[in-house]
Amino acid sequence: MPGPAAPAFVVDQERHWSRLMQMAELGAIPGPAPEDRGVNRACLTPLDRAARRLLIGWAEAAGLSVSIDEIGNLFLRHEGGDPGAAPVLTGSHMDTQPNGGRFDGIWGVLAAFEAVQSIREAGIATRRPIEVVAWTNEEGGRFAPGCMGSMAWAGAQPATAWDAVTDTAGISFRQALDEHLAAEADLPRRALGPAGRPPHAYVEAHIEQGPLLESDGLDIGIVTGIQGSRWFGVEIRGKTDHAGTAPLRLRQDAVQDMVRAITALNRLTHDPADVLRFTVGKVEVLPNSSNTVADTARFSIDLRHPDAAVLTARGDAVAGVVQAAMRHCRATVQERFNALPTTFPPLVPDAVERAAAAQGLRARRLASGAFHDAQFLVPVCPAGMIFVPSRGGISHHPAEYTSPEQLAAGTRVLTATLLDLARD
Amino acid sequence: MPGPAAPAFVVDQERHWSRLMQMAELGAIPGPAPEDRGVNRACLTPLDRAARRLLIGWAEAAGLSVSIDEIGNLFLRHEGGDPGAAPVLTGSHMDTQPNGGRFDGIWGVLAAFEAVQSIREAGIATRRPIEVVAWTNEEGGRFAPGCMGSMAWAGAQPATAWDAVTDTAGISFRQALDEHLAAEADLPRRALGPAGRPPHAYVEAHIEQGPLLESDGLDIGIVTGIQGSRWFGVEIRGKTDHAGTAPLRLRQDAVQDMVRAITALNRLTHDPADVLRFTVGKVEVLPNSSNTVADTARFSIDLRHPDAAVLTARGDAVAGVVQAAMRHCRATVQERFNALPTTFPPLVPDAVERAAAAQGLRARRLASGAFHDAQFLVPVCPAGMIFVPSRGGISHHPAEYTSPEQLAAGTRVLTATLLDLARD
Repeated sequence: MPGPAAPAFVVDQERHWSRLMQMAELGAIPGPAPEDRGVNRACLTPLDRAARRLLIGWAEAAGLSVSIDEIGNLFLRHEGGDPGAAPVLTGSHMDTQPNGGRFDGIWGVLAAFEAVQSIREAGIATRRPIEVVAWTNEEGGRFAPGCMGSMAWAGAQPATAWDAVTDTAGISFRQALDEHLAAEADLPRRALGPAGRPPHAYVEAHIEQGPLLESDGLDIGIVTGIQGSRWFGVEIRGKTDHAGTAPLRLRQDAVQDMVRAITALNRLTHDPADVLRFTVGKVEVLPNSSNTVADTARFSIDLRHPDAAVLTARGDAVAGVVQAAMRHCRATVQERFNALPTTFPPLVPDAVERAAAAQGLRARRLASGAFHDAQFLVPVCPAGMIFVPSRGGISHHPAEYTSPEQLAAGTRVLTATLLDLARD
Repeated sequence: MPGPAAPAFVVDQERHWSRLMQMAELGAIPGPAPEDRGVNRACLTPLDRAARRLLIGWAEAAGLSVSIDEIGNLFLRHEGGDPGAAPVLTGSHMDTQPNGGRFDGIWGVLAAFEAVQSIREAGIATRRPIEVVAWTNEEGGRFAPGCMGSMAWAGAQPATAWDAVTDTAGISFRQALDEHLAAEADLPRRALGPAGRPPHAYVEAHIEQGPLLESDGLDIGIVTGIQGSRWFGVEIRGKTDHAGTAPLRLRQDAVQDMVRAITALNRLTHDPADVLRFTVGKVEVLPNSSNTVADTARFSIDLRHPDAAVLTARGDAVAGVVQAAMRHCRATVQERFNALPTTFPPLVPDAVERAAAAQGLRARRLASGAFHDAQFLVPVCPAGMIFVPSRGGISHHPAEYTSPEQLAAGTRVLTATLLDLARD
C-alpha cells in the first residue's frame, strides 16, 4: 500500500479528529465502548446551536467571516484574491438521525473547514473565495422531509414551504426556525440562495454509508452522481378471522398475501450485478394479534438504481406485480416519491480524481446510494462529492465509523480539489 | 329445508332473543346499523355485575336458586327429583373481548337458562338437578390467561394462581375479584369445584366462531373435542443498513429472511384436507424505517390440529424449518404454548346428535378451533358442546352474528340434550 506520493498540503489530522470528537459530545449517545458512541443531535435544537457556536468560534479564530440565511444555513467565508469571483462552495450538514453516528454530515462540514484553515495556514492564495456551508435539516429526522436548507437555497422550494410541518412534540418547523433565528440574531444575515451569482462549484465530502470502498480496499470515492429512488407504500386488505377456526381456503389473510407480494417483488428486482437496491424496511400488520388472521398489512418499497431507464422500467412494474401476487386480498399501491438519478457534471469529479491520483490514494468512481444536499445544487452549479470508507458500510447508527487516517486522507483530497477549483 | 320434525319442547324464541339484546346493551359498542353493534364487557367490572344482576333477577323469578363461589363463578340451580343425584351442568361465560360481539359466551349462558326455564314451564320433571353456570373470565381480555373460572373450578390451578396478574390500568386480579365478591356479598356462597361429587355431565352451547356450519348449510355442530394448539414466537436478527447503499449480497435483511421463513412454514403446514390451521397474525419489524434495512423481525406462529400426532409432528418441525430458511440472519424460535387436543367422551356428543336428529335439524360432528371452558371440565366429568352457525365465521368482533331462528334451534337442541342427560 503506497503512502501519499506527494502530499501538496498538510492537514492537521489530530486537530481534525479532536474537533469531530468534540462535536460528538453534543448529543452523545452512551455506548459500551468509546468507538460505539452515537449522536442524537436534531436540527434547530439547543444542541444544534451549541454545535454551530463551537464551529463559529473556531471559524472566527481562523479569520473566516460568518453569516446565516433565513432558513438557518450557516456560511463561513474565506476571502479570495478576487472577492467578486464566484465562490467555491463546500460543506454538508450538522444534524444527525435520532440514533445516528459521529460522522454523517458533520465530517463534511469539519473537513471543509479544516481544508480552508490548512490553505490559510499554508499561506496559499486562491483567486476565488471559498465558502464553507452547513445546510439546515438534511436528515429530516425531526422535520420531514430532509434537505430543506439546500432545497430552499437552490430554489427548489420556497423557504416557507414547510412552515406547518411538525415534530413529534407538535412543534412546527416555523416555530423552531423562528426560535433558532432569534437565538442567532447576533450573526450577520445574508440573502437566501445564489441571488443571480451561482457558485463556481459545490463539493461535499461525506462518509460512503455503504460498504463498497471498504470491501474494495479503497481510500476515496469519486462520486459520479446520486442514484434514482422510487418509494411506494403498499396496503393489503383482507378479513380478520379466528386463527383456530377459519379454514385456510376461506381466509383473506393479509400477512400471507404480503409474503406473496414481497416474494414476487424479489423476482422483479433481481439483479445479478447487484446494483439495483430493493428494500422492504417498514411493515405494519393489523390487528397484530397472534391468534387472529390479519385483515391489513402495509409495507414500504424503496427501489434505487443509478440508471434512469432501469429504475423507470422496474418501478413502473411494481404495482402490477403486487396486484398479480394477491390470492385472497385486495392491494393498493401508492408511489410516494420518484427521483430520477442525478449525474454530476465532470468539473468536480475530474478534480477529485486528479487530487486523489496526485496523492497516491486508491480511488474509484461510484454513484451515491443515499440522498445528499449535493443533488439539489446540481441545477445551480457544477457539483460533486468525495466519499471516504464506512466501516462495515454502517451509517445512521452509533456503530458508524471511519478512522482518523481515512478522514484525513479525504480531507487532503478535498483540500486539493478546492484549490484546483478556486484557482481560476 | 325441513322444519323441526317433532319439537319436544317449545323454547320462547322472542324472549330468548330479547334477553340477548338486553345483555348487549350492557357495554354496547355503537355501530352503523343495529346489527353491527358490538359489546365490550370485561370481567369483574360494574358492567359485568350489571349483566349478572339482570340474569339473577330472571333466574329468581323463574324459581332457580342462586349461588357463587370464591372465584366468582355464578350458579343457577334447578332442583331435580333426586336432589342428591349428580347434577347436569350447563353454561358458558358472560365476559367479552374488548371489541367483541353480542353472542360469544353470553348466548351459552342464556340458552342454558332458557332451556331450564322451558323445562320448568312445560312441567317436565327431571331426576337430576340442572345447574346453569357462568364462568369467570373466559376471554382473558382484561386479565390473562382466559378460562380462570373453569380452571380453578376443575382444580387445574388454585383460585389464587392469578392474584398478581394486572390489567392495563394496573389493577390486580385479586383486587378486582375481592371488589367483585364484596359487591355480591348478598349472594349465597358455595364451595369451589365439584368437591368430590362431579357433575353427571357438562354441556356448553356456543357460536361456532368459524365458517363451517354456515358454508355447509347446517344448523347444529356436534362438537367432538377441541383441537390442539401450539404457539411459537420467532425472532430473526440481522444487521441494519442504508437502503440506498448496501448491496443485497452483503445485507442481513431480517424482513427478507422472515419472508423466507414464512414461505417455508407454509410448505411445512400445507394440508390438502385444510384441517391444519397455520396463522402468522403478529409481525414486528425494527427499526421499521422505509429507507433502512431491518435488523430485527419478529412473528408469531399459531398452529392447530385436532390430531395430536399431526400437531406434534408438524410443531416439532417448526424450529428446524425456520432455521433452514435463514440465508443471512440468525433466528430464535421459542415455544410459548402447547396444548394437545381434547376429545369429548361420547356421552354428550351422542346426546346432542340424537337431539338434533329428533328435531330434524341438519348437524355434523366437528372439532372446535377455539378454546372453551368445556376443555377444562374434561378431567372432571363427561363434557361436550353444541355449536350454532356464525355468519361469515366472524367472532371477537362487532360483526359477530347468529339469527334468532338459528339460536332458538340451538337452544332447542340444548334443552333436549339436558333432558336426555338429566333423566337418569
